[in-house]
Amino acid sequence: MTTSASFEPYALGPILSFIKSPDDVKHLADDELIDLAAEIRETLIKCLSKTGGHLGPNLGVVELTIALHRVFNTPQDKFVFDVAHQGYVHKMLTGRADRIDTIRTYKGLNGFLLRSESEHDSYGAGHAGTALSAALGMAAARDLAGGNNHVVAVAGDAAFTCGPTLEALNNIAETTRKFIVILNDNEWSIDKNVGAVARYFNALQTHSTYSAVRSKAAEFVEKVAGRTMRSFAHKVEEGAKNLIFPNVLFEKFGLRYFGPIDGHDLPLLVKTFEHLKTLNEPVVLHIITEKGRGYQPALDNPGKFHGLGAYKIEDGSTDVATTPTCSEIFGRTVTDMAKNDPKIVAITAAMPGGTKLDIFKEELPDRYFDVGIAEEHAALFACGMAAEHFRPFLAIYSTFMQRAYDMIIHDMALQGLPVRLCMDRGGLSGDDGPTHHGLFDIGYLRHIPGLIHMQPKDENEFVNMLHTMAAYDDGPSAIRYPRGTIKGTKIDETPTILEIGKAEVVADGTDIALIGLGTMFEMAETTKKALEEKGYSVALINPRFIKPLDARVIQEYATKCKVICTFEDHVLMNGFGASVIDLLHTQGIYTPVERIGWPDEFVEHGKPEVLRELHGLTAQNAVTKVLKHFSSAQ
Amino acid sequence: MTTSASFEPYALGPILSFIKSPDDVKHLADDELIDLAAEIRETLIKCLSKTGGHLGPNLGVVELTIALHRVFNTPQDKFVFDVAHQGYVHKMLTGRADRIDTIRTYKGLNGFLLRSESEHDSYGAGHAGTALSAALGMAAARDLAGGNNHVVAVAGDAAFTCGPTLEALNNIAETTRKFIVILNDNEWSIDKNVGAVARYFNALQTHSTYSAVRSKAAEFVEKVAGRTMRSFAHKVEEGAKNLIFPNVLFEKFGLRYFGPIDGHDLPLLVKTFEHLKTLNEPVVLHIITEKGRGYQPALDNPGKFHGLGAYKIEDGSTDVATTPTCSEIFGRTVTDMAKNDPKIVAITAAMPGGTKLDIFKEELPDRYFDVGIAEEHAALFACGMAAEHFRPFLAIYSTFMQRAYDMIIHDMALQGLPVRLCMDRGGLSGDDGPTHHGLFDIGYLRHIPGLIHMQPKDENEFVNMLHTMAAYDDGPSAIRYPRGTIKGTKIDETPTILEIGKAEVVADGTDIALIGLGTMFEMAETTKKALEEKGYSVALINPRFIKPLDARVIQEYATKCKVICTFEDHVLMNGFGASVIDLLHTQGIYTPVERIGWPDEFVEHGKPEVLRELHGLTAQNAVTKVLKHFSSAQ
Repeated sequence: MTTSASFEPYALGPILSFIKSPDDVKHLADDELIDLAAEIRETLIKCLSKTGGHLGPNLGVVELTIALHRVFNTPQDKFVFDVAHQGYVHKMLTGRADRIDTIRTYKGLNGFLLRSESEHDSYGAGHAGTALSAALGMAAARDLAGGNNHVVAVAGDAAFTCGPTLEALNNIAETTRKFIVILNDNEWSIDKNVGAVARYFNALQTHSTYSAVRSKAAEFVEKVAGRTMRSFAHKVEEGAKNLIFPNVLFEKFGLRYFGPIDGHDLPLLVKTFEHLKTLNEPVVLHIITEKGRGYQPALDNPGKFHGLGAYKIEDGSTDVATTPTCSEIFGRTVTDMAKNDPKIVAITAAMPGGTKLDIFKEELPDRYFDVGIAEEHAALFACGMAAEHFRPFLAIYSTFMQRAYDMIIHDMALQGLPVRLCMDRGGLSGDDGPTHHGLFDIGYLRHIPGLIHMQPKDENEFVNMLHTMAAYDDGPSAIRYPRGTIKGTKIDETPTILEIGKAEVVADGTDIALIGLGTMFEMAETTKKALEEKGYSVALINPRFIKPLDARVIQEYATKCKVICTFEDHVLMNGFGASVIDLLHTQGIYTPVERIGWPDEFVEHGKPEVLRELHGLTAQNAVTKVLKHFSSAQ
Repeated sequence: MTTSASFEPYALGPILSFIKSPDDVKHLADDELIDLAAEIRETLIKCLSKTGGHLGPNLGVVELTIALHRVFNTPQDKFVFDVAHQGYVHKMLTGRADRIDTIRTYKGLNGFLLRSESEHDSYGAGHAGTALSAALGMAAARDLAGGNNHVVAVAGDAAFTCGPTLEALNNIAETTRKFIVILNDNEWSIDKNVGAVARYFNALQTHSTYSAVRSKAAEFVEKVAGRTMRSFAHKVEEGAKNLIFPNVLFEKFGLRYFGPIDGHDLPLLVKTFEHLKTLNEPVVLHIITEKGRGYQPALDNPGKFHGLGAYKIEDGSTDVATTPTCSEIFGRTVTDMAKNDPKIVAITAAMPGGTKLDIFKEELPDRYFDVGIAEEHAALFACGMAAEHFRPFLAIYSTFMQRAYDMIIHDMALQGLPVRLCMDRGGLSGDDGPTHHGLFDIGYLRHIPGLIHMQPKDENEFVNMLHTMAAYDDGPSAIRYPRGTIKGTKIDETPTILEIGKAEVVADGTDIALIGLGTMFEMAETTKKALEEKGYSVALINPRFIKPLDARVIQEYATKCKVICTFEDHVLMNGFGASVIDLLHTQGIYTPVERIGWPDEFVEHGKPEVLRELHGLTAQNAVTKVLKHFSSAQ
């Protein structure tokens, strides 16, 4: 079994070597903190150049994370990092610096936070917008238990476009008093004016006398006049400093607003946190940070360096793949189709780069909609457009599509609205781990009435399927396709519209029928060769459609052959193979169906080939499973 | 087959009889509109006293709906009603008044809006918080198509606690200019001060000169100073009228705010809509309405009259059931358990009445959390509390749990957090129809690793299961239970903690094994009797656990018996029976499994007994299916 990264361990700098726990951060001198930040940046830049990872976001939160651990005490105090891809620095300060070079590798550190990895990881994540809600639950628990620890939710500005974050905001003030939200704003730049205003307000707001006066005044007003008057008094106060947009918004939700302050000014962060700790009301601290801070290639190209694979340290260059990825083929194909069909629109939930809808954005900006990290709204918005006879292509990763689940049932399928669900990262996602694998979408979509679902065996079929979806207006359709490439096949000049629910019989045979879905078709081919070498007659089927299944073909081969083997990049529970078994059983055909797919557990992170081997997703295992049914007979 | 309601058709009043389409609303004199409102109220009160339905919300929107149809032109203009339980008046004004007495009955009008029911229903719903997003999709479609129709989203105040609504708000201003949101505020009372202020602002805001001046000023500022200055100028204007909370909130989202105005003042509503039609910017109109307006019992008890069954017109009294419902047993049991366990907390998403957590609220208010219509936040909040070693019971209807789907996978199961998912309305919901049936939860939960799922065969077992969940801290657990009662069994004084994954063998037998899940256990019992009368030896199994399945018991009876029949109040696709087939097939046991459950389609509304008969969920059908396997043998 492969363990850890295959390259030389990284030698930590002198201060970072000293940091075995967050206590050690508290023992450093003030100027050593600055050196610590520099060592962390150097470590990140060097280590991630080999493992890949979320370099930009982590370079942005170096000072923030140091200041948090300087002032607060985990694990008693709780930090909840939204998305948690910016948790590398936190890992380094909580006893995991010596393993940071293993991040995202099999058996190495996970690329996100995990409760099982450290007691300092109070909450795990990988999807956006969960931090405020989860942290609020922790604060409510603390209040009930009579504790006095701090709970700090750290969320990027993008999380504030996200339903759960907004739902949480609406609940904070009436749930608890002691609660700190840090809005890590890394999209807005600080121009000098705003910065000056910010400095002024911050000085004003963190001044303890001002704070005391404000609190007493509020108390008085509360007593004499109740809520309406308090609200009025509040307004008067607001009049003096109501120049920044989020200010009023947050205060409307009952959170006291501080900032914006420079999120790279370590002494200021420490001083501010010290002050926030003393308050007995929910607060939001707005900090401005730079993604990629300290590494010029990341500053020059924040999109690329948000998350990436290995790169050259000198210039940030990465290997340029010659084979287009499925995402690229998707972006290109939908854009080309839209040029010939004015009804096609493209919708993304803040992933133009990941889904490659940036191609569509560039060429057809009027019909391109990026709604923010808001999958529920994205799906509903698509339904609204479909109701008005447009053809929306909704591109959301398989795992994030879970956010829009109710809409797929209640709005899309129930009304028969032809939204096209384009699920990138359908199947194992690899290095990113269980928060990002797309291993459940067959399970959660198959029982939805009237929804068509398909998966291509190669790039050319992928393009044909996208054209098939464009032409299908009778209801919702979904397609799952993997991260990266499938087989790298050439794409026909003229696409073919596929017949809905029709499988492709690639080879006939009479002993064994192999049904290889999508990405796993290739493994079925390998299995076929191995079985043929042993003298068996092997049929090979590309099902194309998960739903509707091609009952005729499957029934025919189940009757003709002695055993079937299905291959899928999905959990077996409620998976593709299960649907084949269900279909055959219902027809009274009891031919054994062996299945290759993922087990009923959360699959860890690591390279796909390593994980497939580990969990028996191999041609060799398929051969063994299939031949069991022949051992006694032959 | 039963058709429509079984009582005498209702005779409409003179004006309502005249209204065959929305055009007719435009032909009435102003004072006839007032009479129309009175006729509609009378019709609603009388008809719903027989069919039941959402009386309160519909009485509240009589004037609003008349005014909408007076001013706008459906189907060209689009109304999107959030939740759509307040759409009865709209149905009556769009050619369906003569069938309003059939509402919520089999083959009668649906209790919500349906695109398939009328061209005037531009969008269907049944779940809250979808209107703004869907309407925005329609507005974007109109803009792309070069149309000039109006799109009006009507949403109650409660919808504004809901993630999708807030996600939509964040997208409106940058997506379209012509967009009307009506905030139908029926929880806040208008006290005289607020009303006076409101009247003043409304007069000011709808004045066309003011409007023109405002728009010109904005234009000027835009030109000379860009966005920052405009924002500043905006602030100055705001200073004059910034007294109402939602005002600033909406304006922060880029919607121009009007109101609040009296939502029962028909002439004012008409005048206001006429003005809003002329604007070329997204607006929100805040109206104040009274739920139950015009019917004293509904005004006295708005919670009860939100939605209810048949009632006596004179006093609004309803039959008091003597057998406690599952919801009542749930509320009572969780409250009693919590009294002995300080770690138990209860969480609802705006359904204290429906889930009966109002019992918990009354007796243990400190550990009761109503988070609003915010299922995603509710689930995350529960995860946060579970992470801090509390025992959250999260009560959300099966169909609404779909909203929290990603959180169940990504936050709850992946982290192994012991949140208790209490899914009321698991199974057919009946009169409410497909938006409310809970027929998918086995399908969407079964492939989630480590999640336990169960369903009780009677009330006593229900209580035992709730105690079992309370005692189970190793990961998330779920329970589905039906609307109303199961069998009405008496509850033991001392509860029993059940063994996880252990089925109950109720009767032994050697020909046929019947496995009756939860509510459907009773039908399995009936089937058993019928088969025994025909001389067969019939085993009867109560599976208790959907996951983990009791493999040992099922395997034993599949080996012992010639045929198995499963019963479930769920779709067959990815359902309980499918999991039995999957289990047996994997073990190489090919005993035929017949299945009783719902088909792969959206089941319509109607009484459960009617729908069960229609779709073959009967003991008689089970007998027929099972005996097929004996006809040739015997």
